[in-house]
Amino acid sequence: MAASLRLRGAASGLRYWSRRLQPPAASLAAVCSRSMASKTPVGFIGLGNMGNPMAKNLMKHGYPLIVYDVFPDACKEFQDAGEQVVSSPADVAEKADRIITMLPTSINAIEVYSGASGILKKVKKGSLLIDSSTIDPAVAKELAKEVEKMGAVFMDAPVSGGVGAARSGNLTFMVGGVEDEFAAAQELLGCMGSSVVYCGAVGTGQAAKICNNMLLAISMIGTAETMNLGIRLGLDPKLLAKILNMSSGRCWSSDTYNPVPGVMEGVPSANNYQGGFGTTLMAKDLGLAQDSATSTKSPILLGSLAHQIYRIMCAKGYSKKDFSSVFQFLREEETF
Amino acid sequence: MAASLRLRGAASGLRYWSRRLQPPAASLAAVCSRSMASKTPVGFIGLGNMGNPMAKNLMKHGYPLIVYDVFPDACKEFQDAGEQVVSSPADVAEKADRIITMLPTSINAIEVYSGASGILKKVKKGSLLIDSSTIDPAVAKELAKEVEKMGAVFMDAPVSGGVGAARSGNLTFMVGGVEDEFAAAQELLGCMGSSVVYCGAVGTGQAAKICNNMLLAISMIGTAETMNLGIRLGLDPKLLAKILNMSSGRCWSSDTYNPVPGVMEGVPSANNYQGGFGTTLMAKDLGLAQDSATSTKSPILLGSLAHQIYRIMCAKGYSKKDFSSVFQFLREEETF
Amino acid sequence: MAASLRLRGAASGLRYWSRRLQPPAASLAAVCSRSMASKTPVGFIGLGNMGNPMAKNLMKHGYPLIVYDVFPDACKEFQDAGEQVVSSPADVAEKADRIITMLPTSINAIEVYSGASGILKKVKKGSLLIDSSTIDPAVAKELAKEVEKMGAVFMDAPVSGGVGAARSGNLTFMVGGVEDEFAAAQELLGCMGSSVVYCGAVGTGQAAKICNNMLLAISMIGTAETMNLGIRLGLDPKLLAKILNMSSGRCWSSDTYNPVPGVMEGVPSANNYQGGFGTTLMAKDLGLAQDSATSTKSPILLGSLAHQIYRIMCAKGYSKKDFSSVFQFLREEETF
Amino acid sequence: MAASLRLRGAASGLRYWSRRLQPPAASLAAVCSRSMASKTPVGFIGLGNMGNPMAKNLMKHGYPLIVYDVFPDACKEFQDAGEQVVSSPADVAEKADRIITMLPTSINAIEVYSGASGILKKVKKGSLLIDSSTIDPAVAKELAKEVEKMGAVFMDAPVSGGVGAARSGNLTFMVGGVEDEFAAAQELLGCMGSSVVYCGAVGTGQAAKICNNMLLAISMIGTAETMNLGIRLGLDPKLLAKILNMSSGRCWSSDTYNPVPGVMEGVPSANNYQGGFGTTLMAKDLGLAQDSATSTKSPILLGSLAHQIYRIMCAKGYSKKDFSSVFQFLREEETF
Repeated sequence: MAASLRLRGAASGLRYWSRRLQPPAASLAAVCSRSMASKTPVGFIGLGNMGNPMAKNLMKHGYPLIVYDVFPDACKEFQDAGEQVVSSPADVAEKADRIITMLPTSINAIEVYSGASGILKKVKKGSLLIDSSTIDPAVAKELAKEVEKMGAVFMDAPVSGGVGAARSGNLTFMVGGVEDEFAAAQELLGCMGSSVVYCGAVGTGQAAKICNNMLLAISMIGTAETMNLGIRLGLDPKLLAKILNMSSGRCWSSDTYNPVPGVMEGVPSANNYQGGFGTTLMAKDLGLAQDSATSTKSPILLGSLAHQIYRIMCAKGYSKKDFSSVFQFLREEETF
Repeated sequence: MAASLRLRGAASGLRYWSRRLQPPAASLAAVCSRSMASKTPVGFIGLGNMGNPMAKNLMKHGYPLIVYDVFPDACKEFQDAGEQVVSSPADVAEKADRIITMLPTSINAIEVYSGASGILKKVKKGSLLIDSSTIDPAVAKELAKEVEKMGAVFMDAPVSGGVGAARSGNLTFMVGGVEDEFAAAQELLGCMGSSVVYCGAVGTGQAAKICNNMLLAISMIGTAETMNLGIRLGLDPKLLAKILNMSSGRCWSSDTYNPVPGVMEGVPSANNYQGGFGTTLMAKDLGLAQDSATSTKSPILLGSLAHQIYRIMCAKGYSKKDFSSVFQFLREEETF
Repeated sequence: MAASLRLRGAASGLRYWSRRLQPPAASLAAVCSRSMASKTPVGFIGLGNMGNPMAKNLMKHGYPLIVYDVFPDACKEFQDAGEQVVSSPADVAEKADRIITMLPTSINAIEVYSGASGILKKVKKGSLLIDSSTIDPAVAKELAKEVEKMGAVFMDAPVSGGVGAARSGNLTFMVGGVEDEFAAAQELLGCMGSSVVYCGAVGTGQAAKICNNMLLAISMIGTAETMNLGIRLGLDPKLLAKILNMSSGRCWSSDTYNPVPGVMEGVPSANNYQGGFGTTLMAKDLGLAQDSATSTKSPILLGSLAHQIYRIMCAKGYSKKDFSSVFQFLREEETF
Repeated sequence: MAASLRLRGAASGLRYWSRRLQPPAASLAAVCSRSMASKTPVGFIGLGNMGNPMAKNLMKHGYPLIVYDVFPDACKEFQDAGEQVVSSPADVAEKADRIITMLPTSINAIEVYSGASGILKKVKKGSLLIDSSTIDPAVAKELAKEVEKMGAVFMDAPVSGGVGAARSGNLTFMVGGVEDEFAAAQELLGCMGSSVVYCGAVGTGQAAKICNNMLLAISMIGTAETMNLGIRLGLDPKLLAKILNMSSGRCWSSDTYNPVPGVMEGVPSANNYQGGFGTTLMAKDLGLAQDSATSTKSPILLGSLAHQIYRIMCAKGYSKKDFSSVFQFLREEETF
């Protein structure tokens, strides 16, 4: 649900924009050696909550799949649908020259690419490897280097939008990699998302995602603190939200996803913070932002503190609630 | 300049809204004993950078003024224009039954109202006293109580918008006080501002202002941290701003007042952080937010830290620069 | 219990030191107009958890008391013991020229001194008024000014040490005021505490107390974070405490009052965080530190954050637990 | 200088303690296959500011050395002294079965152990590899695994104490690894340090070091904030330091290394923050603490903020000053 909300309004703009940002048609030629006339099989590794619906959207668009997941059960549905199931990332790489990976952490990504039976063991020259996991940009760059050594192409393309957007094909992809290959990536990613945004060199897709989510976390906590303070000072929450939204305090968290129950309809705060984007996931993304900031020596005073706040919330029973539940976390009255 | 920026876009909406929020016409009767048929003199205390142009806008609308300022020089211009200058707040109260005060701090406001020659020494029953200073909501409530004891009416009406908006009559007033008196306040405030918003009981005008500015400070620092991190991770600043503005990280500081030089035109960051809303003023407002939060026991983790950051900046040469200069503060490279 | 712990070891040093800091004997003469040859009555206002045992220690030393408390029940015990109970602070001031006040907040202190039936209504010239409440140093200075106008003397003398230390007469008093009067204050305070430290001009007693408690809060939270991190990294808590205590991380919170259960005996962490210095009280003192820092424009980045953390803890069920329970607050595992 | 200060007082205690923690003599037998009867050559990799004097202390104790540094110039001094210089870490491993590494970062350590011409290429079975670099505990564990696969032993043994302590052989070593091998490590480390502390399994040496330094950073900043606030509230700095040091605010930073000029002799604050432990180094260690906290999901609210503060200081001209210069950073008056 968070996903659809996040895109409502923004979607059309992003779509327009991503079109505008497409590399010129000429560059498509560059990738034609990689079969595109007919729909040749696409590899898909990682069939979890997000990967499953993403892979299905590729199927809907007519792409035969070569699939692998570390949990064999996750592949069953695809086997029943007639797709080919193999027993390792290496085997996927042997049979497909375009592969999408969707994995939970940096460590999983390293294993799937560089592990003993990883993609790199059998990757074909000229293959296009697109990683849609959300991982450390520095890891993405490392993987890209290794992939390049094998004569293949790596792009990072993390998604914005949750399971709902994955199902409806409305994800936003933020793509980093060689610009000449963007059109080739877009052909596949466009089947799974409504917006495919080119961000620059390898790693910048990850960078864009974690930057957005860090600012999101900061402004969400800021909105929650502000709404709580205003209410305690005697302001009506709906009126305060209106004032903020017409003033310089306005942000997505105040005008589109307000964390205070009763202020807006159709957002997690209206539904006991069910659905949406879980606190654990936000804590994970903030951990990546923190790692990137530490390694680039970038000061992130509020970003670090936001990270710690979501960390604490995970230990106080909020891990599965939407990240806007920080309002509830702060709201509780002191007890005596 | 910050002021006009802040209102661009929002202005029409706020104007509509403030009209919608007007108390019904009937309540106007309540204040008719306070001369409104002809334009009787209005008192104005505090003729500084903001008070001066505000008072002039009242003059332009045909209101004779009774003025006072602690610095006699500040009154000269008004004397030359034929307005009446008196020698204490008490004298203003003796000659005018509608008074506007525009003072730098809570302490000044207490002195002007409750001091040895303060307004309360000679205030007439039924007078309307409007304080447009930005002060602690708790102090506003205290003043209101004392004013009420004298049979007069107190409203807090702090402004949003800087000197430019004060000159052009485009301020936003956030008004707290008895709703029945809102129309009477609006008659005067409407001469000086384009938006007059009713916020609730006495003190809520101050509350709304400091809430907005706290969230503004948080999202500005957040935007600065995020843009800096993104740039260090290899993203183009303009592209990063576009991505944020179409995503859930969007906020006024990213889409209307971006702190990174080169991303937007016509904002302080495009002009070496000249003009706009000074770091010192932001630090002052955050101090008020902090005081309110402490006295209401409201946790403001990011708000407190934002306060400290602007505090530090004031000591590092940023006090007169626009508050978006936090980007510059964070941006500097480590030196060895 | 916290109190006795806090003083164990430090006590002898402080006692020595406070003796060394005594004003020279000559200055005793200055206060001799205030009856000291025989033990004339001493006023005591505020007979709560702390005031009650403090007043009793004065009785034990042979001082007749004139007592008042806003809750008449609190006076009963003293009436039964033959002390004189009166019905207002003003009445205390009429009958005693040395008065000690022990009140919960700044607001109570203002009321007791400056209220309609406050001390200042009937204070005698030359009286010595000692406030042992913990309040804002700025309020102490204000009170001192008003007291001085009446020809009397005001000293702030907040205490360190809890109910246990109050009972055993082992409090530490940090005293601010005119140095010539220190000996006179010491005569009384020495009956209730083992250390009486002269800190400087009026307000510095309060300043010293809130400074100490701010640093205490910071180092306690820091110790809790560090111990928790170390344990998660595989270190044995006792061994880690030993290493810290022999290294540069050493602090009172690590070596005398360790917050990790099992590391030390006889501290609140060994007793489910019962007893000691409550989280609510720490949050109150941090609020005073915050107010002082804001009004003096002093940056306190860690101090502010410590304040917010104890604020949050108060709302999460820790308000009555010892402030070292921040370890427990941080310790909880993330749940899924 | 920081080093000697840090150890003054603590040294004797630690020495006693490290003796007490020695594994029983029996376990020495376990390592006797690794030549100990006569002094066989010891490998030393990394001859920088710290490594150079450490290696010399081994020489003084009669150990022949096999040295390597990525900068050949660094080896010259040792060659002139008759030690054997080789051209890669692998070559060191070929010729020595006990090797000490002293490198600036995790990345360097990975390269020296696992790189193309790294130690692991030619390490002999049963060799003892001791890494005295300060690196991520997680990296230490990884290296230990790889070393173990080759049948050799890895221990992490980061040091506390600076160049001065390295020269005088007064470093403190915090050692993680198999306990049975501790005596073997101690034989060599004892030549370079006055305290060798066994901390537990591999990685706990690093953990202990970064834990101590995180708490040190927090209490140093806390002391600086507190002293600055107290001074602004009218307290004499020396008197405030005395009060803190006899109270619960006491910490190493207040009583042994006070950051306020004029309070203590012989510390960096008495010498314009020259010497001591540089801000850049503290920022590096806090980065490691941050990484460890993020990966173990441990909340470090103050630790994170301390990290960010030292990060900012590095960009404001404090990178080479002692880390106690945070007082100076906070102290500056606001300018207008």
